Amino acid sequence: MDFKKYVADVPDFPEPGILFRDISPLMYNGKVYEAATNEIVEYAKNLDTEMIVGPEARGFIVGCPVAYKLGVGFAPARKKGKLPRETISVSYDLEYGQASLYMQKDAVQLGQRVLVVDDLMATGGTLAATIKLVEELGGIVVGTAFLIELTDLHGRDKIKDYDMFTLMKY
Amino acid sequence: MDFKKYVADVPDFPEPGILFRDISPLMYNGKVYEAATNEIVEYAKNLDTEMIVGPEARGFIVGCPVAYKLGVGFAPARKKGKLPRETISVSYDLEYGQASLYMQKDAVQLGQRVLVVDDLMATGGTLAATIKLVEELGGIVVGTAFLIELTDLHGRDKIKDYDMFTLMKY
Repeated sequence: MDFKKYVADVPDFPEPGILFRDISPLMYNGKVYEAATNEIVEYAKNLDTEMIVGPEARGFIVGCPVAYKLGVGFAPARKKGKLPRETISVSYDLEYGQASLYMQKDAVQLGQRVLVVDDLMATGGTLAATIKLVEELGGIVVGTAFLIELTDLHGRDKIKDYDMFTLMKY
Repeated sequence: MDFKKYVADVPDFPEPGILFRDISPLMYNGKVYEAATNEIVEYAKNLDTEMIVGPEARGFIVGCPVAYKLGVGFAPARKKGKLPRETISVSYDLEYGQASLYMQKDAVQLGQRVLVVDDLMATGGTLAATIKLVEELGGIVVGTAFLIELTDLHGRDKIKDYDMFTLMKY
């Protein structure tokens, strides 16, 4: 399947100079959303994945059906003020700006095999922060998976030690 | 399955006086997340659902695996500044504060049978806003589904004309 047909290119969003790759058309189309999810499911199965973790909020859209299909849990990494109860946090640089991510302390179990999933890998900042949270909680990051990788931004260099699956490269 | 065992009660979150029902333990447990999703899937099947719409961001966690299982698309209703391309919007009152929701103009097709899904129904403000967006786009809201309904807040009164499924009532 030519998944790129279902990505809308949006110039100057959310800021001037940024070419935004919008995965909305992919997820609006049930057959395409299913096929894209199944690709990540196959990757996850080979890694004996026990938990999916995805950053807010498009990471939920990509990661949750993968978790459901595998029969494993899903844990979100969220922005400030969103998660109740005890949390840990990490700050990081975005492609445009700065941010913090939080996870609940009981989100990941000690030694649990975790796949980190998001819609898009750009500079790798969000990814590196999510990995750090999972490992601080005692999880083992067995791989990472994305619908889209922006190769020019060299995010892969930030996480050389981790396996990565990307459905589309730009 | 006693789903309530997997809901954490959090007093005074996100504001004093609010008792927050945290579904995180439910989604962290693969078997429970799967069972809860399957309940909504069965409801959705009986309605010939063609599209799932869920508001940001826990609506994604509940709605996306339902969409995947049915082989239909998922469309998010999102907060200001999150969606690129052409959108429509509606403002509404929250249990605590005020907000606006947005959807992309191509998110729902004319005459498409839409199930609106979220984690929790409180005053019904978010739900009513999401229904309004779907209908403005030409979709037919065939039902609504939630993990949790807070019955004391009488959200059902706001949407008397729509069918509703709730897994847990408080």
